[in-house]
Amino acid sequence: MKVIIKDSFEEMSKTATEIFLGTLQQDKRVNISTTAGATPELMYKMIIDQLDDSKYDNVHYYTFDGSSEMGDNKRTIDHLNDALFDHINIDESNIHELRPDNIDEIQEILTNSGDLDLMVIGMGEDGHFCGNMPYATDFLKPIYTFSADKSMPWYDTILWMVNNEEENIPKKMVTMGAPTLMKAKHLVLIVNGEKKAEAVKKFMNSEVTIEFPASVLKLHPNFTVILDKDAANLL
Amino acid sequence: MKVIIKDSFEEMSKTATEIFLGTLQQDKRVNISTTAGATPELMYKMIIDQLDDSKYDNVHYYTFDGSSEMGDNKRTIDHLNDALFDHINIDESNIHELRPDNIDEIQEILTNSGDLDLMVIGMGEDGHFCGNMPYATDFLKPIYTFSADKSMPWYDTILWMVNNEEENIPKKMVTMGAPTLMKAKHLVLIVNGEKKAEAVKKFMNSEVTIEFPASVLKLHPNFTVILDKDAANLL
Amino acid sequence: MKVIIKDSFEEMSKTATEIFLGTLQQDKRVNISTTAGATPELMYKMIIDQLDDSKYDNVHYYTFDGSSEMGDNKRTIDHLNDALFDHINIDESNIHELRPDNIDEIQEILTNSGDLDLMVIGMGEDGHFCGNMPYATDFLKPIYTFSADKSMPWYDTILWMVNNEEENIPKKMVTMGAPTLMKAKHLVLIVNGEKKAEAVKKFMNSEVTIEFPASVLKLHPNFTVILDKDAANLL
Amino acid sequence: MKVIIKDSFEEMSKTATEIFLGTLQQDKRVNISTTAGATPELMYKMIIDQLDDSKYDNVHYYTFDGSSEMGDNKRTIDHLNDALFDHINIDESNIHELRPDNIDEIQEILTNSGDLDLMVIGMGEDGHFCGNMPYATDFLKPIYTFSADKSMPWYDTILWMVNNEEENIPKKMVTMGAPTLMKAKHLVLIVNGEKKAEAVKKFMNSEVTIEFPASVLKLHPNFTVILDKDAANLL
Repeated sequence: MKVIIKDSFEEMSKTATEIFLGTLQQDKRVNISTTAGATPELMYKMIIDQLDDSKYDNVHYYTFDGSSEMGDNKRTIDHLNDALFDHINIDESNIHELRPDNIDEIQEILTNSGDLDLMVIGMGEDGHFCGNMPYATDFLKPIYTFSADKSMPWYDTILWMVNNEEENIPKKMVTMGAPTLMKAKHLVLIVNGEKKAEAVKKFMNSEVTIEFPASVLKLHPNFTVILDKDAANLL
Repeated sequence: MKVIIKDSFEEMSKTATEIFLGTLQQDKRVNISTTAGATPELMYKMIIDQLDDSKYDNVHYYTFDGSSEMGDNKRTIDHLNDALFDHINIDESNIHELRPDNIDEIQEILTNSGDLDLMVIGMGEDGHFCGNMPYATDFLKPIYTFSADKSMPWYDTILWMVNNEEENIPKKMVTMGAPTLMKAKHLVLIVNGEKKAEAVKKFMNSEVTIEFPASVLKLHPNFTVILDKDAANLL
Repeated sequence: MKVIIKDSFEEMSKTATEIFLGTLQQDKRVNISTTAGATPELMYKMIIDQLDDSKYDNVHYYTFDGSSEMGDNKRTIDHLNDALFDHINIDESNIHELRPDNIDEIQEILTNSGDLDLMVIGMGEDGHFCGNMPYATDFLKPIYTFSADKSMPWYDTILWMVNNEEENIPKKMVTMGAPTLMKAKHLVLIVNGEKKAEAVKKFMNSEVTIEFPASVLKLHPNFTVILDKDAANLL
Repeated sequence: MKVIIKDSFEEMSKTATEIFLGTLQQDKRVNISTTAGATPELMYKMIIDQLDDSKYDNVHYYTFDGSSEMGDNKRTIDHLNDALFDHINIDESNIHELRPDNIDEIQEILTNSGDLDLMVIGMGEDGHFCGNMPYATDFLKPIYTFSADKSMPWYDTILWMVNNEEENIPKKMVTMGAPTLMKAKHLVLIVNGEKKAEAVKKFMNSEVTIEFPASVLKLHPNFTVILDKDAANLL
């Protein structure tokens, strides 16, 4: 694991952008799975700006989690369309949405195209990555479905995703698990902000445990962690 | 993880030999770490036979565990000299012995030569791999030392290694840990014999846990498990 | 380039078999392109014997040359069916036949599945590899068609392929070219017999030139040449 | 080969910077060989700015050409010190200068550290790359020495390098050749300016020939060409 601490959110985003663009500008099929959310927002702006209108047919994108019906609330793919895909020159067929009902299909595409080249993820304050949630993570499943259970400490996170409309909590959620991430040629974790400083500290110190799922990623063979100063300030 | 079940110990050994020789016969530096013990005995005979007297300067070997003074008892490097290195055409400088006192040096050689290309390991009935012993494994240390403690369930295994001469139990032992194995481009586990069938079953079913250390290897991105029929007969 | 000289045709075949089987016994999609003809005959026997009836769904095979209608004469795919594919447990869909009319399709499959992992080829006495013939080779085309022209020194080779039935000389032939071979992660050339000794010598000494097309392969980044003693006896 | 055309010298430099920084920000030993001269000037400014004062111990740099005594004129290593190395946080021991007298040593370091991960080069108007000059290139030598000969069309280029002081033309020059570049995991060619447009056109259309040495690079398995609009304006 290589830890890079940058002075600001902007510098963190720039560093992630370099890895992202450095990976896709190769002369071969490139599979990228990348995160939605606030952390990568500036990174996507930089990527869009730099890609301009160029078309990279060699690049395929994969959402790493998804869910069944959520009412009018946005799913991961909607967030990524808004943040990235709608703003770059790309064919629909190069975007692969993971849903609870197409696990086998996505697995087959990944396997037959040489697995992920790059995965860019964030980390929750509770140590979740993708949809691998505390106490509900299966470290050994490549892709798997799970449900929100009121007993889970992260139930409120799911509620927040559906704008506190309990009736719209998806019946099934799906996520790539640790084995899929382990096969990514380069794994990048980006974390920013003081709010995450405690989680970053736990991440660095934690054993491999499902109480803090991201702990398992420290086993990845080529793993770059990019933090801004605020996220790193308890290290 | 890819599981290959062969009809006999000989076929298992042949399959491992193919991977071993297929890896080293490339036009680039190749780093191999390989196990001592009874399981690879036939594999080494086949390798020696096939390598004949050819010299492969591009291949470097690493012992994955070691220990301090053990009296007249043989250490891992002695066993590997007997089984393999003394019978092939190889310079001393291509063999890298891991000892409790040279961890940093070995780590530097590994890192600066591109990490392991191939690692061939066995598995104990208690689920240990290399020197990663039940309850005494640190999943997050690349290489680390440990000591034999009477309270440990594997204390007798160590006693057996020193011919039941308690005074010769090494003060310090050392082993490559999971992060080093994760960085190997190809990890191969060979297991044979009915005696190991129960362990193989546990291996297949176990969660990632230090009670059964080999469980963590199921996260490896390119992992081939080769069993003979007897070892596989509880699957 | 790494050159391995073995004592006999059998030892040469065994070495190639190890690389072949060592490559396919991994936990990932593996793309292999391999040659028809007399040189690999014993290698295929060894492979068939060792694979037994096991199914390797992760392995895809590609013919590297092909042709339009040849009367009743066998094409490359027929020879490979006879020598290998009919004798191993494999789905039709894992075999990809290159024909003059499906270049784009094959190129797309190769590109989207991560290019070739292994290519095993032979070499003609005239220095041709695959269908890259003296004076008719285009070093810069990944896959391309060509025709037999009476003025070419290799016209007789084509005639021999169609059993001297001039009317059955295919109107179009197709071959993978140097750029496709360059992208193979491991390129293996096997040559045996005294009849090829002169060509082997030329191969070793020749500049990069279309007069002796195999000369370009010396630029390959991971290239293993396996010769028997007879083929090597002018070195 | 993947060709990327950017709107300006700045955009070209930014794209190259992304690849450069994307490559070095990994958790493994990274070997980079990169060019001196005017073309990468802005790229180095961007790299220096972005690396700030961070130390990347995992990155090793190699000059790809060099020469014996040149009087007071600057050699490649001097130019790279000025443009890059003096401005980043790096140990001397991570910089490997190629000289006519240390070919074997540099070759051994490269081979034993897994060959180049990234090579960034420019191209001369006469099609030369590194020190591979028209009519004086040996496509098959990994690293080789050569001398300036008045009969060569590039004699004036060498004269210019020594400020037209004929007495300071180095007796021996040295360069990495095509086989070393072929082994680089990613090869990047940057070209800018209208002055090079004709050469870029020739590069795209030329066969593999020592008259236009860069032509051979089109065989590279992972090759990205980055042009600014001016350099691309005859395509």
